[in-house]
This record gives sequence, structure tokens and C-alpha cells, in this order.
Amino acid sequence: MTQPRTNLRIDPQRLWDTIMETAQFGATPKGGIKRLTLSDDDKKVRDWFKAQAEALGCTVTIDEVGNMFARRPGRNNDLLPIAMGSHLDTQPTGGKFDGVLGVLGALEAMRTLVETGYETNAPIEVVNWTNEEGSRFAPAMLCSGVYAGVFTPEYAYAREDREGKKFGEELERIGYRGSEKAGAHKLGALFELHIEQGPILEDEGRMIGIVTGVQGMRWYEVTVTGQESHTGATPMRLRRNALLGAAKMIERVHEIALAHPPGVGTVGLVEVKPNSRNVVPGEVFFTVDFRHPEEEVLDAMEAEFRKALPEAMADQKLAYEEKRIWISPAVKFHPDLIACVRAGAEQAGFTTREMVSGAGHDAAYIARVAPTTMIFVPCAGGISHNEEESTTFDECAAGAQVLLNAVLEYDRQLAG
Amino acid sequence: MTQPRTNLRIDPQRLWDTIMETAQFGATPKGGIKRLTLSDDDKKVRDWFKAQAEALGCTVTIDEVGNMFARRPGRNNDLLPIAMGSHLDTQPTGGKFDGVLGVLGALEAMRTLVETGYETNAPIEVVNWTNEEGSRFAPAMLCSGVYAGVFTPEYAYAREDREGKKFGEELERIGYRGSEKAGAHKLGALFELHIEQGPILEDEGRMIGIVTGVQGMRWYEVTVTGQESHTGATPMRLRRNALLGAAKMIERVHEIALAHPPGVGTVGLVEVKPNSRNVVPGEVFFTVDFRHPEEEVLDAMEAEFRKALPEAMADQKLAYEEKRIWISPAVKFHPDLIACVRAGAEQAGFTTREMVSGAGHDAAYIARVAPTTMIFVPCAGGISHNEEESTTFDECAAGAQVLLNAVLEYDRQLAG
Repeated sequence: MTQPRTNLRIDPQRLWDTIMETAQFGATPKGGIKRLTLSDDDKKVRDWFKAQAEALGCTVTIDEVGNMFARRPGRNNDLLPIAMGSHLDTQPTGGKFDGVLGVLGALEAMRTLVETGYETNAPIEVVNWTNEEGSRFAPAMLCSGVYAGVFTPEYAYAREDREGKKFGEELERIGYRGSEKAGAHKLGALFELHIEQGPILEDEGRMIGIVTGVQGMRWYEVTVTGQESHTGATPMRLRRNALLGAAKMIERVHEIALAHPPGVGTVGLVEVKPNSRNVVPGEVFFTVDFRHPEEEVLDAMEAEFRKALPEAMADQKLAYEEKRIWISPAVKFHPDLIACVRAGAEQAGFTTREMVSGAGHDAAYIARVAPTTMIFVPCAGGISHNEEESTTFDECAAGAQVLLNAVLEYDRQLAG
Repeated sequence: MTQPRTNLRIDPQRLWDTIMETAQFGATPKGGIKRLTLSDDDKKVRDWFKAQAEALGCTVTIDEVGNMFARRPGRNNDLLPIAMGSHLDTQPTGGKFDGVLGVLGALEAMRTLVETGYETNAPIEVVNWTNEEGSRFAPAMLCSGVYAGVFTPEYAYAREDREGKKFGEELERIGYRGSEKAGAHKLGALFELHIEQGPILEDEGRMIGIVTGVQGMRWYEVTVTGQESHTGATPMRLRRNALLGAAKMIERVHEIALAHPPGVGTVGLVEVKPNSRNVVPGEVFFTVDFRHPEEEVLDAMEAEFRKALPEAMADQKLAYEEKRIWISPAVKFHPDLIACVRAGAEQAGFTTREMVSGAGHDAAYIARVAPTTMIFVPCAGGISHNEEESTTFDECAAGAQVLLNAVLEYDRQLAG
């Protein structure tokens, strides 16, 4: 550990210009990006990325599900590469920063290394994971999932968009089905820079989120059944109003989350049948989303939720069906990488706070197969998946600088 | 008042057969009726009704909006006619009894008068009001409304269905635009027999509802605005969840109604935006329907509702807009006619209860221009506007018998 720290500086203007340049691939009139996975615009940004990386002297390899790895050799190429990256695909009405900042911030870090001629111990790579968003082909984080062994390549190939086009065929069509087996391309570490997609950093006036893990998530679906009836002709005492039971649960889910900080709980989707002004609702479907960094606490939240359901239904004599449809276990990032991010942020002089990611990210799957962590920067109002998504020039630069610092700090520890 | 009571009996089987016969005009595979206003099936049932009435010796006149009046003269034709009737149009997936029973029960009563050669003091009429349902051409109760001066004929003619066809043109097309000015055809009284469309008679095991009026109704629309945000990345304390405010109001509307018996209150329609599992709802639109027999109580319910709104919004710092979009004042039916229904039910030996109609009916408008009341019979489970709508052979017969008795009781009082 005798190798001294470096003081390389990324170029904030070059990073910003790069973000604005690639925002043209799929630009929307309102200033956002529509760059669905494996679309023509996705091909354009991939081609651009490959060309930029090759211009830096990097070798670009592509695996069988389109994940891209741009590699700059190190002093000791027997070491596994230190990777930085995220994703270049967007939501249908996405912003300019979600995912993009993580890849282009990494590219900026790589450019800084090349420009200064700095020689790392390990090889350094910039990664672009395929189909993080899952908007065109569900589920989300598909190809970091394949890389980590969560899904098979065949599963990915068979995913269909709403027009019936298959992931595998579209991957071939745009020329990004590579020969490398997914997961065979081993990583020594992955640092993912990302916008927070929440309001905490902005609210507290801090620049850098040191991300220690990803919350565990559990999704549920509930269908409440009462009796459809005429609003005018059905006295209160003879009603079985399904919406009343659902309304109570909307409040209970909120209360359960409040009782388990920093957990969150949300009913985000509600469908009322027949949904008519003068009919007492006979059926209501709603979804529940619970998240918490600790699985044991999620167990407790789930138990309280399941206890609350029959209580909420009793008054109106409602029936209900409840089903847990998805879980994503809590992830704890690697302490060594977290320490590198902390050191990198301190070195750059930014305010920080530790936080747990509330959203899923490629890093959450990669953490299963390689040491991993994330760096967050603020986004205005916590707004994301939206054309109004906004992270400032300074915030983008801060994120890329901390990313570079963290990677170099990790690399420094590999010396000798 | 010296004229003795008669003891005429309607023919239950003939009534039932007539209901089943006309149910073929627009019959649905599931046993209901689709007989939208001014459709070809509406024309068929109108032609059938006219032919049946004329076969009884009645004179059928049609007014400018298609309301049909089948008249049998009385002993004193200077007296205004005593009318019975309802409507022959149905909902798109309607049942066999809503409206239909009121016209065919009246036709059965008329047949009984003709068959027995019974001579009334006043002329007796059977009425079929055009477009009670309002499914094809909104609003409901359109042509009883024109008759009562609530709407102009021009307003009715200009109503359009979803295909852009105009009420006036469709009325011409099926040949039911009459020459008589709407409302010029004066009525001395109107008795409307109808299925309850609610569960009260069935729940209490009573046969006849003596309807003393129609509840006042008030409709409201509320839009709640919070902040759309990511369910995972937005901590509870930084949320502005519009659905939480709406959920509280769904419960408050119910509680306000419970506090003002026999009032009712319902949120029937809810639209959540963006309605996604992993987005905290940023906007919720919902409707409110309050009904009560007394306007003063409706005023109090409205005041409590408006007081509850800001309270429900406070916790999540939500904004809201509330608008009263429709009112229908409470209607009190004529005490003399109500007394005749009571006497008619007692004479026939049926169990009764007084009740206030929770739904709107043609009689509610006609009450503005002529003495009016209604008779209810049970319908299974309170289910109406549905192909499963069900009223039994005995219940149909009971309703028609009480209708005839009530009309003859009223007519008896005109003697001398």
C-alpha cells in the first residue's frame, strides 16, 4: 500500500458535452430521450460508444446478450479488470441521465487516464449493460441478470416486446449479439455511478451518496371482492363496497412503512370495477410495494400487512385474494469498494452521506458475482423516468470525479 | 266518495307472457335485453305496443320527442287522464324488468279494464317515455324531462350517440317523431310501477314499496395533486402521495353518509396517475355521489365533505380541486296518490313499506307538472342494469295488481 494517491482531474465540460451529444440519439421534443433497448437509436449510441472507446485504444468485446466491455490494459493483466459502467438504454419518456451518466462518466474517467498516460495496475473497463430499463422487454436488469446467472441467455432471447418482436432477433438485427459467453468475462470489481432517482441528497444539500447496498423489495397483488350495486338504491347497511376495504389498506400500507424506518411502502396501482359514478364498487385490484434494507424487517412488514388485510375487509364483509408476486432480496455492497468511494469523495472534498438504494440497478445483480458498489449524485426533485429528469453540470462532474478517484484508490491497493 | 271499490283482478300469466314476448326485441344470449333508445329493436317494441293498445280500442298519440300515450276514454272525458307507465328502452346489457314492467304492467291493467268492460270516470292512459336510460343519448330521463319543461325538444334532438348519430334524426328514422307538442298532452295523475333496483324490499321480505319521493342527489368531482416519485428512492417523509388523500376521502364520504341516515354516499370512480406499481401516485381523480331525501340534510353532508377535504390533504401536503357537477333536487310525491297506492296494496293484501327512491325515474320529472307517485316491487339482490336482473312471476303480478288498484282508487275519488 505504498503507492501514492494520484490527483487526476476529469474534464467537466467534456463530460457534459458528451452527455448532450449522445442525448441526440433518441432525443424527444421535451428534452428527454426515448432510446428503447435494441432499437435503432440504441444501435446508434452503441456504435458511437464503441467508436469512442476504440479511439482511446480500448478493446471492445461484446457478450452473447449484448453487454459491452471496453478495456484498457493495466500493468498486470493477470489481474481481473476494475470495471465502471451502467446502461445506455432509457425509458420511453426517459431523461438524459438515468444510466447514461454511469457509462459516460466512466468513459470520461477512461479518457482522463488515456490523456494523462496514467498506468493502472489492473486493466480498466467501461461497461454498458443491455436492457436495464425493461420497458421494451420485461424484466428490468435483464442482461446484468444473465451475466450474474440469474437468467439464462435463452430466457433473454425469448422476451417479447408489445409488437411480438423477440429480444434475440432484435439483438441480431442491430448486430450486437456477441460471441463471448455472458458471465465468462470476469470482473475484479464494478463501480456504478448513477443519479439518485430520489430526493434525499437534494433535500440534505449533499453531493455524493455512498451507496452501501440495495433495499430488499417485495411486490404483492390484492383483489378485493364485494358486491356491485346501485349507489342510490343500496342503503349503507346493505353495501359491500370493495373500494372501502382497498382505501383502508392504502392507509395501512403507508402506516406499516412509517413504523419501520427507513422502509417504504406504497400502493401505486389501483383498478376499480366497474368504475362508474353511480355504482358501488364491486371489485378493486391494487398493488403493494414494500422495501427495506433488512430482510428480517421486510418479514415483519409482510406479517403486519397480512394481518391488516382481513381487518380491513371485515366491516364490509369483503373477500380478498393476496399474492406475493416478486421479491428482490436486499443487497449489501462490498465494504472495500464502499471505502474506496468514501476515500475518493473525501479526496475531492465533496459532502457525502451513506445511503441504501431504493431502486434496483445492474450493480445489484453484479454484486452476486463480483465485488460491487455504487455512487449516487443528486437529481432535481428526485424526478426520474421522466423527460424533466435533471442533474446539473457540477453534479455530473462530481460523480465522474469520485468514480475515477474510487477506481484509482481500489487499483492503488492492488499494487505490488 | 260513495262509489264502491271494485275487485278487478289482473291476469298474472298474461302479464308474464307479455314480458317474455317483448323480451325478444333485443334479447341477449345471457337472457337480458339490449334495446337502446331509437334503435331498430326500440322501433319493434314500440310498433308492438301501439298494435296491442289499438287492439284494445285505445287511441295512441305520439308527441314530438316520441313519448307514446295509449288512451281509453272514461265516462267523463273532460277530466284529465290518469296515466300509468314507464319506459321500454334498456341499458346496453339491461335486464327484462327495468322500465318494461312499468309499461307492460300498465298494459295488463288496461287489458283488465277492457276485458271486464269496467268504465272509469276519467280517461286512462298507458305511457311509454322515450330515452329514460340515457345510455345511447345522454342524459337520462331525457323525454320525460322535455315533457316537464326541463329540457327543450331542440336540446333532445341535438343529443348525439357515440357514432355521431343525432337523437332527432334517429327519431325520424324509426318513424316516432309525433306531431303533438311535448307537455301539451296534460295528465291528471301518473302512477309509475318499477322494480326497486335496490335490496331493501328483498332484505325485509316485503312485496310492495310505497314510494313517497325521490332522493335529492349531488355529484362532485375531486382532483388531488401530489408529487409523482419513485417508490423505492423516495423516503416516506418526503412523499406527497395523492392516493393517500383520496383514500381518506373514500372513507370520509362513507362516514358522512352513515352519520345522516337514510342518506348514502359513494366514491364510485377512481383514476390514479400514473397508476404504476413503482411510482408514488402524483394525481388522483375521484367522483362523489351523495343522496338524501331532504335538501337541508344534503346541505349538511356537503358542508362536512368540504370540511373533510383539506383535513385529508394536510398530512401529505396535497393540493386539490373540488367541483359540484350536478344536482337533482329531492322530489316529494303527491300525498293523494301515495294514499291510493297504500289503499291498493292493502286491498290486495300485500306487505308494504314506505320508501324513497334512491335512483332517478321519469316520475321524478313528471312530478313537476302533474300529481305523481311510484310503486316498487323487489328485484333479486338489488341487481339492476344487468342481464341478471330478476323479478319473479308473483312480484310482477303483485306490482301490476297494486297499480290497477291504485288507479281505480284514484279514479273512484273523481266520481260525482
